[in-house]
Amino acid sequence: MSKSFQVVGIGNAIVDVLSHIEERFLEEHGVERGIMQLIDMKRAVELYSHMGPALEISGGSAANTIAGLAALGAKTAYVGKVKDDQLGQIFAHDLRAQGAVYETPLADRSHSHETGRCMVLVTPDGERSMNTYLGLSEFLGPDDIDEAQIGESEWIFLEGYRFDGPESHAAFARAIRAAKSTGGRVAITLSDPFCVERHRDAFLNMIRNDVDLLLANEHELKSLYLTEDLDTAMTRAEADVALTACTVGSRGAHVLADGSRVHVPADRVQVVDATGAGDLFASGFLFGLVTGRDRETCARMGCTAAGEIISHIGARPAASLPDLFRSRGLL
Amino acid sequence: MSKSFQVVGIGNAIVDVLSHIEERFLEEHGVERGIMQLIDMKRAVELYSHMGPALEISGGSAANTIAGLAALGAKTAYVGKVKDDQLGQIFAHDLRAQGAVYETPLADRSHSHETGRCMVLVTPDGERSMNTYLGLSEFLGPDDIDEAQIGESEWIFLEGYRFDGPESHAAFARAIRAAKSTGGRVAITLSDPFCVERHRDAFLNMIRNDVDLLLANEHELKSLYLTEDLDTAMTRAEADVALTACTVGSRGAHVLADGSRVHVPADRVQVVDATGAGDLFASGFLFGLVTGRDRETCARMGCTAAGEIISHIGARPAASLPDLFRSRGLL
Repeated sequence: MSKSFQVVGIGNAIVDVLSHIEERFLEEHGVERGIMQLIDMKRAVELYSHMGPALEISGGSAANTIAGLAALGAKTAYVGKVKDDQLGQIFAHDLRAQGAVYETPLADRSHSHETGRCMVLVTPDGERSMNTYLGLSEFLGPDDIDEAQIGESEWIFLEGYRFDGPESHAAFARAIRAAKSTGGRVAITLSDPFCVERHRDAFLNMIRNDVDLLLANEHELKSLYLTEDLDTAMTRAEADVALTACTVGSRGAHVLADGSRVHVPADRVQVVDATGAGDLFASGFLFGLVTGRDRETCARMGCTAAGEIISHIGARPAASLPDLFRSRGLL
Repeated sequence: MSKSFQVVGIGNAIVDVLSHIEERFLEEHGVERGIMQLIDMKRAVELYSHMGPALEISGGSAANTIAGLAALGAKTAYVGKVKDDQLGQIFAHDLRAQGAVYETPLADRSHSHETGRCMVLVTPDGERSMNTYLGLSEFLGPDDIDEAQIGESEWIFLEGYRFDGPESHAAFARAIRAAKSTGGRVAITLSDPFCVERHRDAFLNMIRNDVDLLLANEHELKSLYLTEDLDTAMTRAEADVALTACTVGSRGAHVLADGSRVHVPADRVQVVDATGAGDLFASGFLFGLVTGRDRETCARMGCTAAGEIISHIGARPAASLPDLFRSRGLL
C-alpha cells in the first residue's frame, strides 16, 4: 500500500514573534519562564508594546514538525487555521515553500480574529518563554478535517496544545477515526506540562485507546502520570502505549517499546534559541519511522534535528537537514 | 544649543522578507545579483510564490540606520510611510522598541496599497539581491514632513532610494529647508548605483547645494561621477561636498574632508548576510559625528557597526552595539 502522505499534522497555526530579552524582563512583565502561556489580545498588545525589536517567523508546534519532515523529504500535509491576512499568508507560504501540502482554507478577512501569534521571549541562556495569542487557530473544528486527506496518510500527528479547544477534540476524534479506518497510525505530542495539567484525562483516554506513538519531554510525561519520578512515568507509559519517545533535554532521549528501553544522547550544540527543540525531535523521529529505521536511529535522527533547530533563531530549519543527516551517516 | 534629536532619517519604510536561496535561483527567476530592483505587486507575488521559507524583519535603508543609531543611544526620529496593517504595525513597533521616535501616521486600512516589503534573497556567499515592492512608502510627500521635528534635529539623513518618487523630492526639499533654517545639517546616502543612474542630476544638484555629508559605496560614487576610477570619483566628491565617507566593501572605508583622506580597514567577520552593511556603516559614522569624534573614529565606528550587521541575518542590530563599541575601545 502506498499512501500519498507519510505524516499529516494537526495543530495551532501560529507565527512566532521572536525577541531577545534580559532575564529581568520576565519578572517585570509577569511572564512565566520556559513555558507556553495562553494570552488574550489585550495582553498580547500590552506585552508587545514593552518588547524590544523582534523578527517574525512561521511557527506552531506541529507545523514546525511538519516543516522539518518536509525539509527531510517526507510527504506531508498540515491542518491548522489562519486568516487571510498578512501573517496568515506568510504562514501558508512558509509551509508550502518547504514542500508541505497545506489546504486548510484561510478564514475570510471579515473574521473578527486575526492569525495567531506567539511572542517568544529568548533569554541569554537560549531558553524561550512563550506567550500565545491563539487567534484563528483556536477555531479548528471537525469541519476542518478532510477525511480523504487523512485516509491518505500513514501517520497523523496531533499537537497536544490543541486540546485547549473543545471543537478541536471533535476534530481530533474525526481525524483518528479517518486514520484508523484506513490503516493509519496516530502520534501525539503532549506539548507542555501545563497543557497536560489542563487536559490529563483527555490525554490519557486518547493515549490508552488510540495512540501508537507518544512524544513527550520528561516534564510532560511526569505531569501526565502525576509523579516526580521519570522512571515511574516511563513505566506507566510503557503500559499505556506501544511506542514512546521521551526527550530529556541536554541528556538526549529515551525510546520505550516492547518492554525495552533505548537511550540516545543529545547533540552537543551551543543553544541559541531552544524554540522548536521538541518539535524538530518529532520531525527526526517520525522521519525515521516512516523510512523504516530502527528505534535507536529514529531517536538519533530526532536528536540531530533538534540540535540543528536550537543552534539558531526560529523553529524552522535553517541548515539543510538532509545534508546534516548525511554528515552523521543517518542518510 | 541642545536640540531634541541628533538625527532624523527619511526613507522607504519597508519590511524585509529574507530567504536563503541557491545561486541558480537568481538566473532562473530573472533576479539581478547584488542590487535592489523595484518590482510591482504582480512580480512580488510571483517571486514570493517561488521563494523558499522566509523570515520577516523590519528593514528600510534609512530606518536601519536610525535603528542602529538608536541602539547606540542617539536621539533619533524616522519619517516614512506604512499602512495600518500587520506589517506596518511590525515596522512601527520595531523602530519604537529600539528607542527611535516614529510619528508618521500609519495610512488607513482602506488604502489600496499595503505596507512595502523587500524580498531579500541571500546566496551562499552572503550577498543579498533585493526585490522591493514599495507599497505605501512610495507615497511620501511634503505633507509628511513635520518642520518642527526637523527643526529640532542636528542632522537629517536622506535615503537616496526615495529619489524614485516625485513627491518625495518635494518632501526632501521641504526637510532641507526646515533643517537649514534652524542650523541643522544634511546627510545623504546614494543607496545604490542604479538609483544613482536614475537620478544623477538630482543627486548632484542636491549634493552641490545642500549636502554636508555624503555617504556612498565605491560603486555608487563612481556611478555618480560617471567614471570607472575610484580616485577620480573621490576627487570630484572632494570638490562638491565638505565631508564624504565612501565604503569600499571588505577593504573598509575612506573619509574625505578638508583636502585630506583617511582610510580605515573593515572589520574581519564571516559574512552571513550583507544586508544593511551600508546602512549600519552610516549609523556608526553619524554616531561618531554627533558625539564629536574625529573622522577616523567615525569611520571605525561605521566599520564596526557594519561588521556586526553582516555577521547575522537581518539589517537591524542583534548584538548590543554599545557593548561591541566598548570592546573596541570606541565608547
